[in-house]
Amino acid sequence: MERTLISEANKNEGKEITIQGRVLNVRKLGEIVFVQVQDYTGTIQCVFEKKTEIKTGDAVEITGTVKKEERAKGGYEIHATAEKIISTSTEDLPIDLSKSELKLQLETLLNLRPLSLRHPKVQAIFKLFDIALKSYPAVMREFGFTEIKTPKLLGALTEGGADFFKVEYFEKSAYLAQSPQLYKQIMVGVFERVFEIGPVFRAEPHFTTRHINEYISLDAEMGFINDYQDVIKTLNKVIKQMFEIINKEGKPYLEAYKAEPVKVPDEMPQLKLSEIKKIIKEKYDYEIPATTDIDPEGERLACRYAKEKFDSDFIFLTHYPWEHRPFYTMPAETEGETYGFDLLFRGVELVTGSQRINEYKMLIENMKKKGVKPEGMEFYLDTFKYAMPPHGGWAIGCERLVQLTLGLKSVKEATLFPRDVKRLSP
Amino acid sequence: MERTLISEANKNEGKEITIQGRVLNVRKLGEIVFVQVQDYTGTIQCVFEKKTEIKTGDAVEITGTVKKEERAKGGYEIHATAEKIISTSTEDLPIDLSKSELKLQLETLLNLRPLSLRHPKVQAIFKLFDIALKSYPAVMREFGFTEIKTPKLLGALTEGGADFFKVEYFEKSAYLAQSPQLYKQIMVGVFERVFEIGPVFRAEPHFTTRHINEYISLDAEMGFINDYQDVIKTLNKVIKQMFEIINKEGKPYLEAYKAEPVKVPDEMPQLKLSEIKKIIKEKYDYEIPATTDIDPEGERLACRYAKEKFDSDFIFLTHYPWEHRPFYTMPAETEGETYGFDLLFRGVELVTGSQRINEYKMLIENMKKKGVKPEGMEFYLDTFKYAMPPHGGWAIGCERLVQLTLGLKSVKEATLFPRDVKRLSP
Repeated sequence: MERTLISEANKNEGKEITIQGRVLNVRKLGEIVFVQVQDYTGTIQCVFEKKTEIKTGDAVEITGTVKKEERAKGGYEIHATAEKIISTSTEDLPIDLSKSELKLQLETLLNLRPLSLRHPKVQAIFKLFDIALKSYPAVMREFGFTEIKTPKLLGALTEGGADFFKVEYFEKSAYLAQSPQLYKQIMVGVFERVFEIGPVFRAEPHFTTRHINEYISLDAEMGFINDYQDVIKTLNKVIKQMFEIINKEGKPYLEAYKAEPVKVPDEMPQLKLSEIKKIIKEKYDYEIPATTDIDPEGERLACRYAKEKFDSDFIFLTHYPWEHRPFYTMPAETEGETYGFDLLFRGVELVTGSQRINEYKMLIENMKKKGVKPEGMEFYLDTFKYAMPPHGGWAIGCERLVQLTLGLKSVKEATLFPRDVKRLSP
Repeated sequence: MERTLISEANKNEGKEITIQGRVLNVRKLGEIVFVQVQDYTGTIQCVFEKKTEIKTGDAVEITGTVKKEERAKGGYEIHATAEKIISTSTEDLPIDLSKSELKLQLETLLNLRPLSLRHPKVQAIFKLFDIALKSYPAVMREFGFTEIKTPKLLGALTEGGADFFKVEYFEKSAYLAQSPQLYKQIMVGVFERVFEIGPVFRAEPHFTTRHINEYISLDAEMGFINDYQDVIKTLNKVIKQMFEIINKEGKPYLEAYKAEPVKVPDEMPQLKLSEIKKIIKEKYDYEIPATTDIDPEGERLACRYAKEKFDSDFIFLTHYPWEHRPFYTMPAETEGETYGFDLLFRGVELVTGSQRINEYKMLIENMKKKGVKPEGMEFYLDTFKYAMPPHGGWAIGCERLVQLTLGLKSVKEATLFPRDVKRLSP
């Protein structure tokens, strides 16, 4: 018999159908066995009024009659008449996937990733990730951005040179891109508005719940802006429209984590970094170290303030200091500041952005001041000799977006196979 | 005055508007100057009945009255009353972007990439690339595939170990992923149907028009198949629906290259590799070397045959020999063959796919026979102890798809910033 997809079962009430899928759990109630089966379209309960060899985790084919059953999830169940075990486990599963919660330590969860990902609650995270990946290009195209793919192998250290992974590239050395920064700026000269979705690589020896060494960056760059506020305005709209999609299509996954739909203000609150530092000191008696722009506790408190004062999960911090921003960031008219900003979301930095320098001379001078060497970046620098319009852009951390939306403790939970200083496998 | 997008100009006939954009070219006809301006929504001609400082390549703002003009591209032009040069070139452009063809050697075209990309005919390639990137996930989601992002940094050599780039990863070594192969198979156990769009890295010292060392792979993997023919059928449908989108939305870009819309058969012709080898020998008197599965000339002739015999731009070659396919490929029932296939398009391999081995024991034995060591792949191999369903998948080369659709000589022309043995910049 031909396979019927589980999502189509409800159209076959009273008929006999054959489904295929993975067994999420098996429950016995006296003589009756309930088998929950999942395929790529949904899940359904199959009822066996006899013994069955089927166990949790098996890949099965089940034939039976579709019956309405209000108590069953989805409103229908299959009364099984025949079964075939397509593939079974040759060893006992090292974790119990049939329970409603996995309750594993993060390390165990990650070590057993190929299996722990099969748990419905873990699946929910990556279903939401899928929706995030779908929503970004949809919204960006609506705003007239062209999708680009730029190289991850670079011939030279760029952006200052720190925290790059080195690659043996035939007879030479290459470096893994920390961001598509230089390329997306070049592409402003071509398509005016561009976006990219791709991996970025950071050789930062961090051990935190907010860092991974390889992640998916949702980048954008736009030309003919008046100032950094145009970038902020567009980003605000993009985030708003993304969450309209994520809240709607991701509803069951948000619910699995008891996460509220994300409310995005039409106009997110904004403060200068120097202002929020003062507020945090006055209101929460926390002093951000002078050597940093803002630290994690500062970000948390900034978001607490945004919530208390503006009832907003988001807050823009602007005018980041010149010394903490890369050489391509447009200096502000105010001394020592730039038109660089961060967007914080629920206590954590979600986006970094800025207006960029678009004049050759200013760029070269800023590099000199910062002690950044031009070697290997000539192709980028030369572009600014040829009429680059005022422009700016941003980079959204996709894993963080998913993590913070669902309220996960670590960004690693929102990464299929995370990479950190110690972890290169699975 | 507020900016009007060029695509909106035609709604403003008789009105004064201000546009911003890049100057594609400047032509003088007596006292009149025609300035072609492009923004991210389109291009329009601006007419100056006076002298202007504007030159090709400038970023400008032009104010003027919209007039209907049937001879102008788009049917409207702007009679300029005011101009502002937002950003100008401080050096002469090293190439003439105002001509209808660039006519540069490939090396020059690539060396000057930040500027050569600004030429409308080069832009057309990457506008088509953008549409390809849009079409693949749209079609894959329609078929129930979930988008995934898997790591590009691997802890061990996988897939046999050849042609990997090595990375210094803190105190250890890592390798750049040649494909998401192992991870997408693992994900079949999670979501049954998955796809990925991402860079892959091949340390192959090739110098050809068909190879680059970093490219965008459009991957997929699907479970609960009956056999490799299910993979072929789904791939056929995916390619067909992708080209429906590409042909339609990419029309102006195809026209720029005088490329015909791509016709995709409902059922592409299929031949066993051994059969096409015989045919090529008999019909075209070309013998494919015994040491290879098929060579570039063989692929060209296979496609010639597909065109002559089936009027098809596509042909599936199936049953690739065991010795030329990776360890995870399902062996065929016929001696020395596998259920591995290639899809050729207009003379070149576009897709590689296969049914995979889904049983642990068979997988381990096949690895032994091939001399592939399991070290570092345990997480992958162990997955097969836990009821993996029959599955298979494919990888489409995105740059090749664009190259062959437009009839470009080299795949490097279809890559924004290509990487080869000698080229790591721009």
